[in-house]
Amino acid sequence: MAVTYPYLLLDKGKCLENIKKMVNKAKKNNLKLRPHFKTHQSIEVGTWYKQLGVDTCTVASFPMAKYFASGGWNDITVAFPVSIFDVEIINSIGQQINLNITTSSYKNLNSITNADIHRKLGIYIELDCGHGRSGLSPDNNREIALMVNLIEQNKYFHLKGFITHAGHTYGAESIEEVEVMHRKALKLLSQIKLFWNESYPEISISYGDTPSCSISEDFYGVDEIRPGNFVFYDVTQASIGSCTHKSIAIALICPVVDVYSERGEATIRGGAVHLSKDFILLPNGSKSYGLICPFNGKKWEQPIEGLWLKSISQEHGVIASKDADIISKLKPGQLVAILPVHSCLTVDTMGELFLSDGTSISTMRKRGNNN
Amino acid sequence: MAVTYPYLLLDKGKCLENIKKMVNKAKKNNLKLRPHFKTHQSIEVGTWYKQLGVDTCTVASFPMAKYFASGGWNDITVAFPVSIFDVEIINSIGQQINLNITTSSYKNLNSITNADIHRKLGIYIELDCGHGRSGLSPDNNREIALMVNLIEQNKYFHLKGFITHAGHTYGAESIEEVEVMHRKALKLLSQIKLFWNESYPEISISYGDTPSCSISEDFYGVDEIRPGNFVFYDVTQASIGSCTHKSIAIALICPVVDVYSERGEATIRGGAVHLSKDFILLPNGSKSYGLICPFNGKKWEQPIEGLWLKSISQEHGVIASKDADIISKLKPGQLVAILPVHSCLTVDTMGELFLSDGTSISTMRKRGNNN
Repeated sequence: MAVTYPYLLLDKGKCLENIKKMVNKAKKNNLKLRPHFKTHQSIEVGTWYKQLGVDTCTVASFPMAKYFASGGWNDITVAFPVSIFDVEIINSIGQQINLNITTSSYKNLNSITNADIHRKLGIYIELDCGHGRSGLSPDNNREIALMVNLIEQNKYFHLKGFITHAGHTYGAESIEEVEVMHRKALKLLSQIKLFWNESYPEISISYGDTPSCSISEDFYGVDEIRPGNFVFYDVTQASIGSCTHKSIAIALICPVVDVYSERGEATIRGGAVHLSKDFILLPNGSKSYGLICPFNGKKWEQPIEGLWLKSISQEHGVIASKDADIISKLKPGQLVAILPVHSCLTVDTMGELFLSDGTSISTMRKRGNNN
Repeated sequence: MAVTYPYLLLDKGKCLENIKKMVNKAKKNNLKLRPHFKTHQSIEVGTWYKQLGVDTCTVASFPMAKYFASGGWNDITVAFPVSIFDVEIINSIGQQINLNITTSSYKNLNSITNADIHRKLGIYIELDCGHGRSGLSPDNNREIALMVNLIEQNKYFHLKGFITHAGHTYGAESIEEVEVMHRKALKLLSQIKLFWNESYPEISISYGDTPSCSISEDFYGVDEIRPGNFVFYDVTQASIGSCTHKSIAIALICPVVDVYSERGEATIRGGAVHLSKDFILLPNGSKSYGLICPFNGKKWEQPIEGLWLKSISQEHGVIASKDADIISKLKPGQLVAILPVHSCLTVDTMGELFLSDGTSISTMRKRGNNN
């Protein structure tokens, strides 16, 4: 079949490098690495972790847990608060899989305690370390104690520990800001571990977003980390300081369809159905939906200075520059590589990753037809 | 198989009502209706148009043209500027299909004139009537004449007319504002028609975004309209004034996973991988990624006043209210229906539409696994 555009290209070398670095960092800090697989959603990419000794993973849903269980993963944490609608699929995942679930409050846990669950489940209590989205305040000892009590009363439940996602680090604008958030989170987590360790010596603290895990060298009190995005990284992570543009392992390959030199713009085939709609704000106040790199048909080079993807609609992207000369070098029919602002969403939207040898890797949410 | 959440529910009655209204408006104004199928991307929804006598359609890509050709559509316009990478698939679409393509400039057209195209193609020249994204300025007679010349010289090319998308109406904040943009576009289009009509009496003016086509009753000089979004409508269209909330025909059914009464928020399973990331700004300055409706398992009711979807991440949504009482009525394990901000992207992201009888309709970009 003919290649249709846009397609998502994965630089396997960069991806393996990203995985290796995180595996080594976890080892060095004596942390279990339980990478979040929602970024790549692919059994094949999962095997690249396995080859480096990683045998536990994190997922965003029970269908995703089932998918990776079918791919040989037998120790999986679902890092999204459970709901009554998950019970049927929970029961359908074989007992031989260590399945850990997340619960974000007493109300949330209570909503499933009388459900007909008949398999063992490790339970993580979710704490909110500053993100403000989901989970309990770490100083809410009363509610945590009530939850521990509910867990104790259920023969299928086993308290695994506390889980948190310091997702507010995604809003940081420098590595220093990430470090401040990270240290605050570590302090809160150490306190709660100290409090519960006496009754539950096996209790585990599960932590770790990509910015903290990429930037920091201190994980005091933490037992496992769950970064996901680092496997591919993206423009957001580069702007925070988690990585350089060179570490970004995926790019959307798009045809330039027209060039409007007079207004310093060019249109590409490549829009929200390919990249999704996350953007970053540039120092000049413009939105950027991606960075534009030269592409030779096999590999992309570093982003072209002074060019950015200023807007996207469903299928169109508009590249902008303040320098008419840069835009004028683009030609209709040329291919460019777009470094995505948010790789997790771009992978989810596309559903398939192409390698430089022309083969492709399907994700769990592969499309019937990709264009 | 168990239903997994979230899923996208289609109210077929509302959808048929939306289609009928537009069919009647086109008839009344003596316009050909060539609806854009990028919103529903589904052969089955296409048949609902056929049953009302619509036999021409618009698509966003050549793979989409091929998909609808396989579903019995034999007069299709691809309303996206052509590129050299489309040639192979253009040639693979059978000669019995009337296939019209779009070209946005002389440079764009020139990029394919020497390609090995060997099927007849209707050619639309794209004009920019104020949107500022793609196409020529309507007063650029010199470049248009050069393009007409190139078309004349190619034995497979046949000049169909001028095409424009007044997409700037999506930024309008009232029906009056849409009318102003619409009248300006009509004036430009009438002038260009007058200019070219003498040499090309069959020339067609193809126009029409959902706001203009929903709101206006005057289409002087226009031959065909191509609205797409109106088939389902969405919160953006309701905020412009193209429709009421009652006409919105799709909703994402999501479980409430937790309730944080103290901060007036609740979390749902439902995020960017389901809704995509378009938002509108509310009068109170907050972003809204959707409106929240009560749901009884079959049908949704009108949006709950004072509630909105204030943020979404990959899988989470956060519902907010300024009124703690409204939030406190939500319970973990309850289902809510979310009216999407941009139905085209939500349908594309989900890839499958469920009807109230539990059956489902696949889109062209159906997922291997939807959750």
